[in-house]
Amino acid sequence: MEIIFLGTGSGVPSKDRNVSSMALTLLQEQNSIWLFDCGESTQHQILRTSIKPRKINKIFITHMHGDHIYGLPGLLSSRSFQGGDGLLTIYGPHGIKEYVETCLRVSGTHLTYPLSIVEITEGVVFENEQVIVSSKELDHGVTSYGFRIEEKDKPGELLVEKLKDLGIDPGPVYQQIKENDIVKTKGGQIIHRPKFLGPDKKGRIITVLGDTRTTPQFRTFAENSDVLVHEATFDESKADLAQQYFHTTTKQAASLAKEAHVKKLVLTHISSRYQKEDYDKLAEQAQEIFPNTELAYDFYKVTVNSR
Amino acid sequence: MEIIFLGTGSGVPSKDRNVSSMALTLLQEQNSIWLFDCGESTQHQILRTSIKPRKINKIFITHMHGDHIYGLPGLLSSRSFQGGDGLLTIYGPHGIKEYVETCLRVSGTHLTYPLSIVEITEGVVFENEQVIVSSKELDHGVTSYGFRIEEKDKPGELLVEKLKDLGIDPGPVYQQIKENDIVKTKGGQIIHRPKFLGPDKKGRIITVLGDTRTTPQFRTFAENSDVLVHEATFDESKADLAQQYFHTTTKQAASLAKEAHVKKLVLTHISSRYQKEDYDKLAEQAQEIFPNTELAYDFYKVTVNSR
Ligand SMILES: [Zn+2]
Ligand SMILES: [Zn+2]
Repeated sequence: MEIIFLGTGSGVPSKDRNVSSMALTLLQEQNSIWLFDCGESTQHQILRTSIKPRKINKIFITHMHGDHIYGLPGLLSSRSFQGGDGLLTIYGPHGIKEYVETCLRVSGTHLTYPLSIVEITEGVVFENEQVIVSSKELDHGVTSYGFRIEEKDKPGELLVEKLKDLGIDPGPVYQQIKENDIVKTKGGQIIHRPKFLGPDKKGRIITVLGDTRTTPQFRTFAENSDVLVHEATFDESKADLAQQYFHTTTKQAASLAKEAHVKKLVLTHISSRYQKEDYDKLAEQAQEIFPNTELAYDFYKVTVNSR
Repeated sequence: MEIIFLGTGSGVPSKDRNVSSMALTLLQEQNSIWLFDCGESTQHQILRTSIKPRKINKIFITHMHGDHIYGLPGLLSSRSFQGGDGLLTIYGPHGIKEYVETCLRVSGTHLTYPLSIVEITEGVVFENEQVIVSSKELDHGVTSYGFRIEEKDKPGELLVEKLKDLGIDPGPVYQQIKENDIVKTKGGQIIHRPKFLGPDKKGRIITVLGDTRTTPQFRTFAENSDVLVHEATFDESKADLAQQYFHTTTKQAASLAKEAHVKKLVLTHISSRYQKEDYDKLAEQAQEIFPNTELAYDFYKVTVNSR
């Protein structure tokens, strides 16, 4: 899995940071790309990456503020223009359907692919054999969601030596054993699969929170994530502004990361009041509490390795 | 007057050309900036110019296709964020009001300034003491307008020598003569203004056509323009595509420029099928018919001098 940050600013674009978007590439596992938020000019940012819009098959919208959605209609149109034909599903709060449908209708845009728009509530948003995505309501004045993307555990490796010791040699029977709880071999042996598998391969967990004040309530939702992506609109000295505008500070985000036992914290949604020379300070404030913190920048990549 | 092209591409953004927008700065005359179309990422382009969003007080939308409107909600929001408080008026086809109002409402955007949205038809769109803007329906499959911006002629200079010859020396009386048809001086002389003014200063004319097929019908509308901004989505060899998709070729645009006796033609809305190495060819095709043609590029400026 690879995360690439497409926009890491807050509210308005600056020369330095575009408004919010993040892409998650699910490599072999899914051969697909998911977006989280789609601020204006996300498609322009994508032009500067190796991402193909037609490979984006899910877009998760955390909340309806303009800096998180105004790039959607353009991206949807361009995906069409570039020959995308696979289903695209948008998951987002109430209002997302009216927004997208109005933009497409008034502009006379006819997509070349099926588009599904799902207005979500708290709970399981999507599930297939490999992954489960759940959402949690945050604290941003307007409805704002966090998303927890959890790969399902995979069965461990076949214990080949143990099978050989029983005289069962490699061949089609190995595949049968992998796929069935109990197999009777040609030699008449009864093989109970659990005894011949190594430990489960643990799935990875990524948690992406939309704009929010932070609270210890989110600890369980973020628990044990490989990567927690958290907004840090303000530095620690602006805790009053963070409270007033339903945002989070660097240190508050770090506290959640620590309490939730995540492996890595990435801070994003940085206010345009901060300039390049402030970035080290912002990161350091968080690192005092949670050392494995990075401050995201546009096109920053995080590779999430298997556990 | 100065024109700056903010986006000169067609349909989708490329690394080279953003989607449509053009700014007209009315210098001293109005201390204001007008936009023509506002494709996605127009506000990002503006960040790279000296234009202040709060100085934009009119936005003219030629038609409702996404590459001409998807940057509006973001620009309106950012103008607010940056402390704009003056009235902004949007003029555009039917649908523009629903589009803008829906985008602002679903995103919970509350502007700090009054916004007026005028759904236009063919005719005079705006008029004040200095300028008149009229619109004409074009031929683009959907409703698409051209705009003719015409400065009103200004009275000529006071003929100071002629007044001095009559013994009328410089002073407040000169201002009176400028402002009144007939003035009686302290010395009892009756001054008929028209006899003491030089020739009228002719106003400048700029014509901006939205996406369209071209036809000789537009000749009168563009007649005598200092600058005609015309789309040229296709080169001459693609006249069939231009016809099919309601667009114009380089040579077709040049023919209109010639027939309408304009001073300068600027081609824009260039298809992304053309690369840097094609641009000379595109310009030359038009220049064969109308020599004073330029192919616009993003951030290309045209200064329109007084006549
Ligand atoms: Zn935001
Ligand atoms: Zn267009």
